Amino acid sequence: MAMMREGDAPDMTLASSVTIDDVRRAAERIAGHAVRTPVLTSARLDAMLGVRAFFKCENLQRVGAFKFRGALNAMSALDGDARTRGVLAYSSGNHAQAIALAASLLGVRAVIVMPEDAPRTKLDGTRAYLEISGRSAGEIVTYDPKTTLREELGGSIARERGLTIIPPYDHPDVIAGQGTAGLELLEEVGELDELYVCTGGGGLLSGCAIAAKAMSPRCLVVGVEPEAGDDATRSFASGRLCTVRNPGTICDGARTPYLGRYTFPLVVRYVDAMATVDDAEVVAAMRLAMEHLKIVVEPTGVLGLAGMVKSVREVGSRDGATRRVGVVVSGGNVDLDALAGLLGRG
Amino acid sequence: MAMMREGDAPDMTLASSVTIDDVRRAAERIAGHAVRTPVLTSARLDAMLGVRAFFKCENLQRVGAFKFRGALNAMSALDGDARTRGVLAYSSGNHAQAIALAASLLGVRAVIVMPEDAPRTKLDGTRAYLEISGRSAGEIVTYDPKTTLREELGGSIARERGLTIIPPYDHPDVIAGQGTAGLELLEEVGELDELYVCTGGGGLLSGCAIAAKAMSPRCLVVGVEPEAGDDATRSFASGRLCTVRNPGTICDGARTPYLGRYTFPLVVRYVDAMATVDDAEVVAAMRLAMEHLKIVVEPTGVLGLAGMVKSVREVGSRDGATRRVGVVVSGGNVDLDALAGLLGRG
Repeated sequence: MAMMREGDAPDMTLASSVTIDDVRRAAERIAGHAVRTPVLTSARLDAMLGVRAFFKCENLQRVGAFKFRGALNAMSALDGDARTRGVLAYSSGNHAQAIALAASLLGVRAVIVMPEDAPRTKLDGTRAYLEISGRSAGEIVTYDPKTTLREELGGSIARERGLTIIPPYDHPDVIAGQGTAGLELLEEVGELDELYVCTGGGGLLSGCAIAAKAMSPRCLVVGVEPEAGDDATRSFASGRLCTVRNPGTICDGARTPYLGRYTFPLVVRYVDAMATVDDAEVVAAMRLAMEHLKIVVEPTGVLGLAGMVKSVREVGSRDGATRRVGVVVSGGNVDLDALAGLLGRG
Repeated sequence: MAMMREGDAPDMTLASSVTIDDVRRAAERIAGHAVRTPVLTSARLDAMLGVRAFFKCENLQRVGAFKFRGALNAMSALDGDARTRGVLAYSSGNHAQAIALAASLLGVRAVIVMPEDAPRTKLDGTRAYLEISGRSAGEIVTYDPKTTLREELGGSIARERGLTIIPPYDHPDVIAGQGTAGLELLEEVGELDELYVCTGGGGLLSGCAIAAKAMSPRCLVVGVEPEAGDDATRSFASGRLCTVRNPGTICDGARTPYLGRYTFPLVVRYVDAMATVDDAEVVAAMRLAMEHLKIVVEPTGVLGLAGMVKSVREVGSRDGATRRVGVVVSGGNVDLDALAGLLGRG
């Protein structure tokens, strides 16, 4: 697949590469394996913010993040031959665990390429999911990130063994899978005035935006990024790909350096606005989610909530009416010691 | 109502004061107001413990605890006259917030009697729920716990104003309301081998036990208490009421000194076993719930999980079969700073 480069314009012919029908097909494929996650509400939070808010809790999804939807959909969509040969993914985060669990459930072999200095909990988690059905569904290949490029190592293993690479976000089946979170939310709560979605590579955002525009056409879809990693916000504003490498933010899931070949045009077509929040706003949103929704969230997971809170405080209520807002909470995979440290900051 | 005293035998004529029909009627009454809370599962936790576990998450109930079910059912069951006069409750914990929210939703006036040194968050929470509909549904009366007995103060206000006292657990309508948590769990997951329920005054335990025995007759129902506050365990074993005042445990919701006039006979009739866990086991269970279920739990909230983990480690698997176990997670109202401190202990 051709890589995007700084300054590239989005290829708008790819803006129709994922449609609401693809999202609906994905919903059928993942039914029974993925959890239909609960939509939580809080009367106190609503009263505090002056909105009626609906939280789609993907931290309560299997592997603790929405990533399972896309991984499962992409692997389910493989033809028989490709399934027999297996898949490869490189990730040190939630995508690795999602591929590992999907491999176990579907009986597809997976190779997961991870840096050897990845956090022990991520390595352990990925291994546990590969073995969860009682026999191993694949293997973890580690590499030294100082000497090896994961794309090169992963590419060569995939070519050698005939494996299909499942990328973490820039793939139509992955995007359609992530969109099922938005589809379920809108099916459950009906039309919304606004929908806030966290943004890393734009897979969840574009998938949910496709669902929202189909189910609730007047819904304003807002992508929310960490201020220090505002590549998608600047790309959206300028119409040219901007990149930010290794941004200094606690939102480790949103450190992706750029939108993708598919997600950039989809975001341009379906998303209405981009917003950024700083780390202090993210920590404040984590506290709100823990106190009022009683859920464990990772920093990236509450970008949408942080963006919503900021918008409500800046814009206030529109026409005096109570806005119906949706928020996708993307994940809850946070080390508890790190969490205790973040709470200490607040 | 006559108080129970140390050494009293349970009045077994009261063991039929709450039936499965009462629990079903309660379910109808609270539908639409109470949340049908999600049942969460974790494949990794199951693999780790060698069980198939279903967690009924009452921390995701309104006000963050199962207490809302009983309060709402008892207040909904009042006749027109009693509703017009209003209710009174004394509590410094989840019951106060439950009564306050139920009062707001039902348009019933409530007086909540709280110690003036109650944690600020509890006072603020109760006040917020009294005002959540936009107008005040009642008032908080504070007292100095060094000079005043809450029962006397509450009793005299109730007599003066003709208010109905809604006790936190020892009342048939409260017990039936709490039982709806167990009813929903069994409706959703089908028969269980075991059900673990945390135990303070025994309202949740007896209500859930009634539901479990009706829906899944062979299900073993286990009540779990903090080791330092093992009054119900000793009462259950001896057949005579034992009391423990102000036990030193982090499980503040289970510091109730004794089972009640109704709950003691109900526990004797419907519960199969009692178990205790120490604070370290509670903290370990909190970590498991946060890591694998991604939920915020208060110490009392995970007594059931802690008891289940202990039982699994002691007993192992029965006949090599995977046990289907239910666990009621009772609440999530924990101060985040206290939570960070508890995580630091683990």
